[in-house]
This record gives sequence, structure tokens and C-alpha cells, in this order.
Amino acid sequence: MAQEFTPRGSDQPCVFCSIVRAEAGAEVVHRTDTVVAFLDAHPLFPGHVLLVPTVHVQTWDDLPADLAHEWLTTSQALQRAVEAATGADGALLLNNNVVSQSVPHVHLHIIPRHRGDGLRFFLGPRRRYAAGQAREVADAVRAQLVAG
Amino acid sequence: MAQEFTPRGSDQPCVFCSIVRAEAGAEVVHRTDTVVAFLDAHPLFPGHVLLVPTVHVQTWDDLPADLAHEWLTTSQALQRAVEAATGADGALLLNNNVVSQSVPHVHLHIIPRHRGDGLRFFLGPRRRYAAGQAREVADAVRAQLVAG
Repeated sequence: MAQEFTPRGSDQPCVFCSIVRAEAGAEVVHRTDTVVAFLDAHPLFPGHVLLVPTVHVQTWDDLPADLAHEWLTTSQALQRAVEAATGADGALLLNNNVVSQSVPHVHLHIIPRHRGDGLRFFLGPRRRYAAGQAREVADAVRAQLVAG
Repeated sequence: MAQEFTPRGSDQPCVFCSIVRAEAGAEVVHRTDTVVAFLDAHPLFPGHVLLVPTVHVQTWDDLPADLAHEWLTTSQALQRAVEAATGADGALLLNNNVVSQSVPHVHLHIIPRHRGDGLRFFLGPRRRYAAGQAREVADAVRAQLVAG
């Protein structure tokens, strides 16, 4: 099961690096020098795939920008393949960073979805912003974007 | 609230195109000719941002590949900015395709996460594959990738 919290810079041995090096078993569906995709061993639904870079980085913002084209096009090919292979109506793509991140090696979940499959991940109550709050939060995000 | 199912090719008027054209109000935090990011009006947590392409395409696999670099680097900048602006421990990046997709214009959710925030989106029971089932599913995905 996913851990609640994996601090950045965790130095626990990395099972995904072992899969990348083909030292740990996994149903690999795609492999290049820079990315590997394999079945999640504890799928939410059958066909649930993980896409990882071969380089060990923990979080999405650490993905090397020169991977961008392969990362996007591979995720797209996987989305289509997973949907077709499972007869799915759609797909959920998801990436956890630090919180709910079970393995500290960035991984994109590609999960087939069927209408009425019962997955309700937006448990929240979703809220509305109070008057003025949205502007305040947006200002804070804009300031951080400028600070870069 | 999100609809359960938005068929591909839905021709309902697109609220995100209206935001892209600045005809509908939104707290926009980033805008270029090709991508726009703004606060989700019904946030899971304050600072919940949506990143959309200015071109109207419904699903992830329809994102133009020539957007790849800007799409990745912008999502990374937004992740960092949202985390910093909200004092978050991490972030959830998420994209719904068809099922649970409320607006038929591809959008990447960037959601700040705090340790112990109570979000449990992996409701499933997560399962294990029965003997032989993983190989069978992986074979089907691999076949679809080759058929591509």
C-alpha cells in the first residue's frame, strides 16, 4: 500500500531502479534507454500501468526537460494501448509527489476507467472560495511563478 | 461537480475555451499563446490549478506533441509555485479522460497536498493479479502498443 509521505531526498533502496535495471521482476510493456513502463503489481484496475524515467528523480518537477517529448508521446501511446487492451471508456493519468507517493522515483499512473467503475477519488468536499480568497491565492501562485 | 462520463467528441459549449478567450472569468495565473493556467473554481484544496492548452482537444492523447516541452515545463513551474504558495508538502497531478471528465477540454489538475490532509483517492480495493493474469494483460497492452 502507498505510504502517506515519502520525504524528498529519501534514500531508501529504489524498487523502480531495480525494475529499470531488470533486476526486479515486472511485466514491462515498453522500454527505451530513457523510459520504462510496466504493470503496477497492485492495480487499481487490471491494465494499470506505471511510466518511469530510467534516471532516478523523485518528483515531477525533477523530470529532465529534454525528456518532455518522449514522456508525453509515450504516455499518450500507453493511454491508448491500455484503453484498447481493456475495452475501457477512458483513462485516469495521475502522479503523486511526496504525499501518497509510495516509491520515491517519479511515476505516472495510467489507469483504465470504465463508466460506472465506482472509483471516486475526489472525496473532498470540493469547496468554493470565500469572497476575495481566490484572488489572494492566485496572487500568491503568480508571485511564486515570477520568483521561479 | 464532475459528470461521470463525457463522450469523446462532445460538442457542448466549452467553458475552458471561454476562459482561454478571456470571455469567462477565472483567476488566471499563467498565459501564453499555447497554454493557460487558472484556479479551479471548485478546488479540492485552495491553490488547485488547472493547466489547459489553448487549442480545444478533449483528451490527453490528443495533446499536440509539439506542445510537449512547454506542457511539461509549465506543469513543473506550476507544481513548484502551488506548493510554495500554499506551504504544501507535495502535489497531486491528475488528468481525467472521458470518465470523470467534467469539461471536454483536456486539463491537468495540479493540487497541493499536505501530510494528513485526508485525501484518499485510491478507494479501490487495490488487488493483485491472479496467476497468469498479469502476463495476459501485459500481452494485450504490448500488442496494442505495436498496433499503435
